[in-house]
Amino acid sequence: MTQEEALRLLDQHRDAIDQIDLAILERLNARAAVVEKIGAIKKEMQFPIYEPKREDAVFRNVIGGNGGPLSEAAVRRLFERIIDEMRTLQRERMEKENQS
Amino acid sequence: MTQEEALRLLDQHRDAIDQIDLAILERLNARAAVVEKIGAIKKEMQFPIYEPKREDAVFRNVIGGNGGPLSEAAVRRLFERIIDEMRTLQRERMEKENQS
Repeated sequence: MTQEEALRLLDQHRDAIDQIDLAILERLNARAAVVEKIGAIKKEMQFPIYEPKREDAVFRNVIGGNGGPLSEAAVRRLFERIIDEMRTLQRERMEKENQS
Repeated sequence: MTQEEALRLLDQHRDAIDQIDLAILERLNARAAVVEKIGAIKKEMQFPIYEPKREDAVFRNVIGGNGGPLSEAAVRRLFERIIDEMRTLQRERMEKENQS
């Protein structure tokens, strides 16, 4: 492979990653929107917000569905961050609502 | 809303999240596969592995493409984790290759 070919290939792969990232972002936001709907129902019904069993189910779903190359540990850490950010978003919303 | 209606709705939303999570996972793995291709090219060409400018471009892409509800800070933290896991995967592969 010449230097030029390598650079062109790298550019193509980076474009592919940028497209994948936007698709991931779109789904992360879609997930956040569903989490907000769940939060609103729980609030209205005065159901408990935090449900550890449901979190276990979320991890089981993604670990069971993982075909790699990401490791199981990596998938777990990634979804821990995702769940954590959804929780942060809900907390920020609630704080805003309580202020108004 | 009755308790029964609320529970049914929560179930539906959770099914939606499980589907979204599998779609996110699929794309995370697709991203990892492209990162591995990039790593292989860089190794062959002896290009530098770490390129801070490229990381900036990754953040610009997703922050520019963010329509919410996730905040810019949340998107940044999520993609920091994603980039970090891709780096871990590449490091693990290299260690394995060096051992064999």
